[in-house]
Amino acid sequence: MTDIIRADGRAVHELRPITIERGWSAHAEGSALISFGGTKVLCTASFTNGVPRWLTGKGKGWVTAEYAMLPRATNSRNDRESVKGKIGGRTHEISRLIGRALRAVVDTKALGENTIVIDCDVLQADGGTRTAAITGAYVALADAIEWGRAKKFIGQKATPLIDSVAAVSVGIIDGEPMLDLAYVEDVRAETDMNVVVTGRGLFVEVQGTAEGAPFDKRELDALLELGVAGCADLRDLQAASLAAGE
Amino acid sequence: MTDIIRADGRAVHELRPITIERGWSAHAEGSALISFGGTKVLCTASFTNGVPRWLTGKGKGWVTAEYAMLPRATNSRNDRESVKGKIGGRTHEISRLIGRALRAVVDTKALGENTIVIDCDVLQADGGTRTAAITGAYVALADAIEWGRAKKFIGQKATPLIDSVAAVSVGIIDGEPMLDLAYVEDVRAETDMNVVVTGRGLFVEVQGTAEGAPFDKRELDALLELGVAGCADLRDLQAASLAAGE
Amino acid sequence: MTDIIRADGRAVHELRPITIERGWSAHAEGSALISFGGTKVLCTASFTNGVPRWLTGKGKGWVTAEYAMLPRATNSRNDRESVKGKIGGRTHEISRLIGRALRAVVDTKALGENTIVIDCDVLQADGGTRTAAITGAYVALADAIEWGRAKKFIGQKATPLIDSVAAVSVGIIDGEPMLDLAYVEDVRAETDMNVVVTGRGLFVEVQGTAEGAPFDKRELDALLELGVAGCADLRDLQAASLAAGE
Amino acid sequence: MTDIIRADGRAVHELRPITIERGWSAHAEGSALISFGGTKVLCTASFTNGVPRWLTGKGKGWVTAEYAMLPRATNSRNDRESVKGKIGGRTHEISRLIGRALRAVVDTKALGENTIVIDCDVLQADGGTRTAAITGAYVALADAIEWGRAKKFIGQKATPLIDSVAAVSVGIIDGEPMLDLAYVEDVRAETDMNVVVTGRGLFVEVQGTAEGAPFDKRELDALLELGVAGCADLRDLQAASLAAGE
Amino acid sequence: MTDIIRADGRAVHELRPITIERGWSAHAEGSALISFGGTKVLCTASFTNGVPRWLTGKGKGWVTAEYAMLPRATNSRNDRESVKGKIGGRTHEISRLIGRALRAVVDTKALGENTIVIDCDVLQADGGTRTAAITGAYVALADAIEWGRAKKFIGQKATPLIDSVAAVSVGIIDGEPMLDLAYVEDVRAETDMNVVVTGRGLFVEVQGTAEGAPFDKRELDALLELGVAGCADLRDLQAASLAAGE
Amino acid sequence: MTDIIRADGRAVHELRPITIERGWSAHAEGSALISFGGTKVLCTASFTNGVPRWLTGKGKGWVTAEYAMLPRATNSRNDRESVKGKIGGRTHEISRLIGRALRAVVDTKALGENTIVIDCDVLQADGGTRTAAITGAYVALADAIEWGRAKKFIGQKATPLIDSVAAVSVGIIDGEPMLDLAYVEDVRAETDMNVVVTGRGLFVEVQGTAEGAPFDKRELDALLELGVAGCADLRDLQAASLAAGE
Repeated sequence: MTDIIRADGRAVHELRPITIERGWSAHAEGSALISFGGTKVLCTASFTNGVPRWLTGKGKGWVTAEYAMLPRATNSRNDRESVKGKIGGRTHEISRLIGRALRAVVDTKALGENTIVIDCDVLQADGGTRTAAITGAYVALADAIEWGRAKKFIGQKATPLIDSVAAVSVGIIDGEPMLDLAYVEDVRAETDMNVVVTGRGLFVEVQGTAEGAPFDKRELDALLELGVAGCADLRDLQAASLAAGE
Repeated sequence: MTDIIRADGRAVHELRPITIERGWSAHAEGSALISFGGTKVLCTASFTNGVPRWLTGKGKGWVTAEYAMLPRATNSRNDRESVKGKIGGRTHEISRLIGRALRAVVDTKALGENTIVIDCDVLQADGGTRTAAITGAYVALADAIEWGRAKKFIGQKATPLIDSVAAVSVGIIDGEPMLDLAYVEDVRAETDMNVVVTGRGLFVEVQGTAEGAPFDKRELDALLELGVAGCADLRDLQAASLAAGE
Repeated sequence: MTDIIRADGRAVHELRPITIERGWSAHAEGSALISFGGTKVLCTASFTNGVPRWLTGKGKGWVTAEYAMLPRATNSRNDRESVKGKIGGRTHEISRLIGRALRAVVDTKALGENTIVIDCDVLQADGGTRTAAITGAYVALADAIEWGRAKKFIGQKATPLIDSVAAVSVGIIDGEPMLDLAYVEDVRAETDMNVVVTGRGLFVEVQGTAEGAPFDKRELDALLELGVAGCADLRDLQAASLAAGE
Repeated sequence: MTDIIRADGRAVHELRPITIERGWSAHAEGSALISFGGTKVLCTASFTNGVPRWLTGKGKGWVTAEYAMLPRATNSRNDRESVKGKIGGRTHEISRLIGRALRAVVDTKALGENTIVIDCDVLQADGGTRTAAITGAYVALADAIEWGRAKKFIGQKATPLIDSVAAVSVGIIDGEPMLDLAYVEDVRAETDMNVVVTGRGLFVEVQGTAEGAPFDKRELDALLELGVAGCADLRDLQAASLAAGE
Repeated sequence: MTDIIRADGRAVHELRPITIERGWSAHAEGSALISFGGTKVLCTASFTNGVPRWLTGKGKGWVTAEYAMLPRATNSRNDRESVKGKIGGRTHEISRLIGRALRAVVDTKALGENTIVIDCDVLQADGGTRTAAITGAYVALADAIEWGRAKKFIGQKATPLIDSVAAVSVGIIDGEPMLDLAYVEDVRAETDMNVVVTGRGLFVEVQGTAEGAPFDKRELDALLELGVAGCADLRDLQAASLAAGE
Repeated sequence: MTDIIRADGRAVHELRPITIERGWSAHAEGSALISFGGTKVLCTASFTNGVPRWLTGKGKGWVTAEYAMLPRATNSRNDRESVKGKIGGRTHEISRLIGRALRAVVDTKALGENTIVIDCDVLQADGGTRTAAITGAYVALADAIEWGRAKKFIGQKATPLIDSVAAVSVGIIDGEPMLDLAYVEDVRAETDMNVVVTGRGLFVEVQGTAEGAPFDKRELDALLELGVAGCADLRDLQAASLAAGE
């Protein structure tokens, strides 16, 4: 680590200010409005007793996720995907990533034949929307599971959540590995990586892409180290949020 | 008016608590997060210099609106219209209503060849989302116009806004006309009406529908009277919000 | 009322020539080709024993409507919505309006578990297509219900139709309220209103829109009065058509 | 030919009663409501000065066609293709056939840079809708071309129509070749053929399909002979219709 | 027949070199990669026990087909229909033709309640893709039926295939009828015809289109004669391929 | 590395038999039919002089890719995305990955204002289709660039390809890291990773996903090492293919 100070005054290994407004939604069984600096994502978890037809009778539950952005979440307005009549590749890709990340910490047998749909809607974007979404979605998911337990859809002794999960972006800018890129940093990054890490510090997903020049093993290792440390901080913030009385 | 007290303690002619968080969005040229009780709508106004091709060269601007709901804004989750690949009739209808309401108070000649797109996204729904959207959209629109003036896209002496506009729902429940229906009231209403009224107290739009029994002229008049009074209250709240320094 | 004479020679409170060709379709259980001057709408009612899945077992029937225009019903050709792959907002809005108008006079319990789908296809348009559609649809609906009774899908003593329903457009042109606007009048109207009225003279739907300047209560009242009188005339024409032997 | 009498009393080589209401539409540049017995198709021709971008500057015009059915044109209701959001294979196929048939008798150079779009909407179906559509479309096309000539979009000496064109269905039922099948005959036909023939008696299109057993050359020849004779009768009816003053 | 020699050295009544790689696919129950000169079509037959819901319980099977082209099968690249979000008219039309051709030689009662879906994907196109597809599809179909018999989904004594079927294109170029047109010939043809003929020499489908001038009976007869002879050659090649051990 | 022998007899660090049929397509400017064992992908590169509008005048070229599977490429048939009317998330994700991988080795300035579209169509799937697609696409791309140079669309001294690129899948099965997973291995893998590596051995993309239990840094390192070695072997095969005369 060096003494580089970033545009917003952070050190290279520092997260932006993180806030989690747990229980933001009056309707959803679990919800969190999470902010990573200027990035704000509303995560809701909708609990339904029962599973899709293709899973019926297998004694297992289902967790899935959908990601979207409001049209003016970004600096210039994007057309709505509902108006265009189709979902773009980026939206699809992120929705699938969030779903995989959450399922990695869920024991679907313990969940029983229940379905939880997580919606992550980006209200305002400033880089790292997918990783903020995963981090907030975990909080919404945890509350939805507790709701299901209180309603007796989930057994009192079942432990559907086998670990927690958080995610953060890391990248190399001007040769320097940095944690939690804001939008102005993201567009300048030579290499961009998203890491999804469990509360115990294991990898669920590693996605690194050379935006400029290809990268070597040493750079990869530096990024992973930053990402794992950042996810440990996020894990603690998630835990604090979930520990607070409502 | 009678002494009937509603579920939430309001008198029949009372609005729910209204809040307007003006300038909620860091990116949009104008924005407002408006609440009518549990109904929360994020309104953003996106200003673009220039107009759609079909309007080019006529010396006039364009104002349009799109309305949508987050999937879990409501009590049970609705599938996303982007996933279904088409926009439902209700969404279309409300988007068109908001656009007409706003255009009724805009002098498009004074606006010049500029386009303002208003997005009204319902984050949480508890009845009256379309009327809250119109009321909040006006605030976002006013700020976007001031932004355009500051950027010199609009002439310094031009007055694109010729009046203000607000909207509220009214309905008859158990024979009693009531203002600003919450969701539990809306589903029980025999007659449901949305009125869109300018700051000067003139009608822009009156949409009354018999949900149960058809209604007579006397009932219609009672509803209109309530609606006009409610819109006058909303006009004052809009003005106060716009008068506040940022 | 004044002595103003309109382009087609009508007085301000006069309907255009109305014709109803009842039973136009050889296949449909009820049908009517209705003309309001140059506006011609083919209305068919398709009766099916049984209801959509979501209504099954509730002992109630279902009435719904779809509106569309042939591509060259209008002065210049419009692309087909089937070719564009999506239904426009205007089409959606009018289909929903027709369905609500008809359901307002149907006792779905008395209809029993039967479904009636009304199709209103505009063959030629000259203003007021949605109100002509509602007026003609009522005739098709009445015949489809009699067909269902003859086939014993509806009880011999049941009265699914609790009233008749008709609709007409009214508007203010050059400050003058007028009934049943033709297209050339419609485009000039400052205020445009559609009223849907039952045979007993009660309102089912009132939709008034300021196309130009907003309107006041006095103008609204004048329009409603014209509309109610026009609908009474239409009710008599519907009754005469239904009374005629086939 | 044998003495077989068909359900509707026709001889095997007889057309159903044919009517052509030329100029049915008040708006279209050419139009005809054509009936082949119970089959009724509204054909409109929309003339536009200019051609699609891909044809610009080649000194040639363009003629294209779209075919569709009203939802209750048939014995039981079909869902609208606009509601389904896509056009079915049958609709596509028939639209393409009509376009090819008409283009076969048009000299696009003589037409000049003008576009004619033919819409054939089946109001009521009783077999042979595509052949009725072609036959009626020719009449609408001829009038649209005269309109274009009167408006000077087409040269006074140009002859864009190099021949007339008509079409009819033929089929084999119980081993017997028959002309112009009604729906009840069509569903029983072992072999079904549509022939499109010019006024001079040449083939533009021959489409024969074995619905039941495959057919041999002798049967094919018998069908072609019937079809050519039927098209000659239709040609005379088209000519009579076009010769009548309006 | 004349002594005309074509660009590729063939006589007018000669097929291009035909190859059939039977069993090309490791997964499909029947498959063939068929080449007609430079035209290469991969045909797979997918066998499923059971039928679509609308056919259930009737003791009959179902055979259907889908045709498509890879984007760069042709000389210049075509956009994918999946990307465009809809299937073009030509694709629909050819898929329907292939399905009809195959069903003409299948006894669906003998097939039992089984479904066979044939996919014909054009890997490289050089004219005659639809006729190559039908010819190859028959081979894939025959193998899939044998697979079904081996798996006991089809009775040991049942004969679902009542004949074979092949197809070829014929056309008139410079007044000369020719067999099996390559792409450079197809674009020059005045008349273009596809004939689908059973192994016994009967017609299943005859589709002739005047691309330039309309054609007369004599030309039609010459084309049919060429096509029938070509299909007889293809039938022998199909039989030889199916007779070879795997 | 251990002495484990896999189902197909390979050692854990061994690739499946790789074949590259360069120049498979008669039409495309570059093409390769690549096989990784039973996985067969047809890669075509379509060269167009000029760039999309949004890139015009910047002196830079564009490379993009589309991936798709034939419906029966897999063990059971999948519905076509063209028939479903939309592209699935997986297809989108892989298309984007291939495009990024290729652009990482292209100097778009040296390419000049030219566009190359790569189509990767999976004819038969047995695991690792996306990595086979990238590896084959590079060969097609290299030939398309040489075509562009021969046609003088690219400068004779320009070097648009700054490196080669290949990709391979790696995974952990029963705790053992393995190279180039076949389908039966892929479904059993606890961790699944795709690595995209340049000819010089640098990473372009690393995508690792825990399908079962999350993975630690040691496992990640073992997978990366295997992947880098596998890509070096693929690079040599690509080079040999490109070195061969046509």
